Amino acid sequence: MSPTLDRSVRLTEDAVIILDRRRFPFERVWVRCATAEEVAVAIEDMVTQSSGPYYAALYAMVLAARAHAHLPAAAARAALGTAGDRLIASRPTNNHLRKAVAAVLAEVDSGDDLVAAATRGAEAGDARYRADSRALGEHSAALLPDGARVLTHCWADAYLIETVAAVQRAGKDVSFVCTETRPYLQGARLTAETLAEMGVDTTLITDGMGASVLSAGMVDVLLTAADRVTMDGHVVNKVGTLGLAVAAHAFGVPFLAQVQAPDLAARTAADVPIEHRDGEEVKHTLGARTASARVRGFYPAFDVTPPRFVRTVVTDRGPFAPDALAAYHSAVYNRREQP
Amino acid sequence: MSPTLDRSVRLTEDAVIILDRRRFPFERVWVRCATAEEVAVAIEDMVTQSSGPYYAALYAMVLAARAHAHLPAAAARAALGTAGDRLIASRPTNNHLRKAVAAVLAEVDSGDDLVAAATRGAEAGDARYRADSRALGEHSAALLPDGARVLTHCWADAYLIETVAAVQRAGKDVSFVCTETRPYLQGARLTAETLAEMGVDTTLITDGMGASVLSAGMVDVLLTAADRVTMDGHVVNKVGTLGLAVAAHAFGVPFLAQVQAPDLAARTAADVPIEHRDGEEVKHTLGARTASARVRGFYPAFDVTPPRFVRTVVTDRGPFAPDALAAYHSAVYNRREQP
Repeated sequence: MSPTLDRSVRLTEDAVIILDRRRFPFERVWVRCATAEEVAVAIEDMVTQSSGPYYAALYAMVLAARAHAHLPAAAARAALGTAGDRLIASRPTNNHLRKAVAAVLAEVDSGDDLVAAATRGAEAGDARYRADSRALGEHSAALLPDGARVLTHCWADAYLIETVAAVQRAGKDVSFVCTETRPYLQGARLTAETLAEMGVDTTLITDGMGASVLSAGMVDVLLTAADRVTMDGHVVNKVGTLGLAVAAHAFGVPFLAQVQAPDLAARTAADVPIEHRDGEEVKHTLGARTASARVRGFYPAFDVTPPRFVRTVVTDRGPFAPDALAAYHSAVYNRREQP
Repeated sequence: MSPTLDRSVRLTEDAVIILDRRRFPFERVWVRCATAEEVAVAIEDMVTQSSGPYYAALYAMVLAARAHAHLPAAAARAALGTAGDRLIASRPTNNHLRKAVAAVLAEVDSGDDLVAAATRGAEAGDARYRADSRALGEHSAALLPDGARVLTHCWADAYLIETVAAVQRAGKDVSFVCTETRPYLQGARLTAETLAEMGVDTTLITDGMGASVLSAGMVDVLLTAADRVTMDGHVVNKVGTLGLAVAAHAFGVPFLAQVQAPDLAARTAADVPIEHRDGEEVKHTLGARTASARVRGFYPAFDVTPPRFVRTVVTDRGPFAPDALAAYHSAVYNRREQP
């Protein structure tokens, strides 16, 4: 049985519905977005995150196509472009949004009925993302020996689900330690619940305990997703990853970072904008105030791990050393069929 | 004006009253302990922590003396010893409890009326702890240049208060970044509120953000208390310290660890028991469940930072390199008057 979060963004006849990850697993509430703008706001508000915005943006573009199908072709295309820009701007650090919008626009630009083309582009983008995540999961699983004890951070979504699925198909057993990942607690809620759904032995720690677990020899590998990996091997991921990677390096534990593809548009870390969210979020936990009201909060949503702390970048095309990512995009791999 | 938490354990005519740090600053509730056993339970339950258990144990011994004053001298002394052992066992990692009990028993063993002697011992222990913390604060402040931006973790209590007071007496200005310190949020509640009370510019981050702040050059020094420092320079402190220290080292930021005295009874880290608390605490935040119920929590309350990640240990007798702590206990320093 597929875990709950694997299908948590859906296109209906008149909306995109998104499982509210801010309340999962305590409540299972779906947020209904009738327009692409409402989807963009839902992404900004963290109704969904990780892989979720990718799917949400794909189907938001279908909503936009439906809304503008009555316009002349050029005007409709322009409106779609505007909707895409709005979606991309909803969160700046991850590449998923740009890829989702591009997937739909490429199909739209091949001609054809607007709504049909957008829908086809979204469905193809959905299928490709799942296929690439599955390939990435297979490559990741191959690096995890039977009995591996894995430390992870935040919520790697499709990458995590596919990694665990591949491990299980291979007849191997792994256990996880996951960080709670404040302020949104994606680790405590999404990762923990999903690993439990998949039957994986899971231990939860707070974000400050990673170095302790690493220094104690309690884990064999640090495995996280990356929102982006630059061509020179910087890993951009949920804030907290850097501290774990530095500690893993100090205590001799390899750090494997998962990303479908290193980003050709980002030569190095300076090319990746780091999202800063409202510091008030740091002063709250699931909506309740949990800090002194008299200080300011600071919330860089992502951090950047330099390549010297990264052992391996695992992609849909296999593992690469962080100083050898150019090979991902090399001729050999380009022979691979693209859907 | 002294900050609220500076006088948060008090002896009354018939009890020890303790400000409940689990609810501060949202509520200001005092827990009344009529017996030494009730004080021990309050310490176990985290009603107070950091410097708090030291004061609580001092005055719990006075309660024990009052309770047993009617017994023959030998029986009363035995009962006091038992009460002391119970208090010391309430939390195993910090040395404060042992010192507090020893301070009272030494005075009791000098003869005299039991209650009078215990009270005198407790009051002397209280005064000595404050004087030593003040000296430690002065030495710490001397290491902080005007304008220093300080990262701290958890709640350093008297050490923090005295450091800030000394900085302010010297006419210097410092700002703080403090971690929230899950699961009890001592940083978000106690440190943040106290720094605000003292007029210090303060920024709150989650526990996963320390490395990001350190790598970005946003702080000049990492400054934490230590529950214990071993004679070979291992720093035992609230879990999370290790990760910050490793990151500080990686990014060239000095780590100053504060302790009144390195522990002659602990040659190295193996001599310090690390308290493990109930993993359920990791799955909750201020009493509310904030994690999947389907996984186990793991809660090592302290971690151990090896000396290679420590720049300086600041004591009541001044700063020492972590490989030169024997000098603390050397003849020169022993000439200092002890109260």
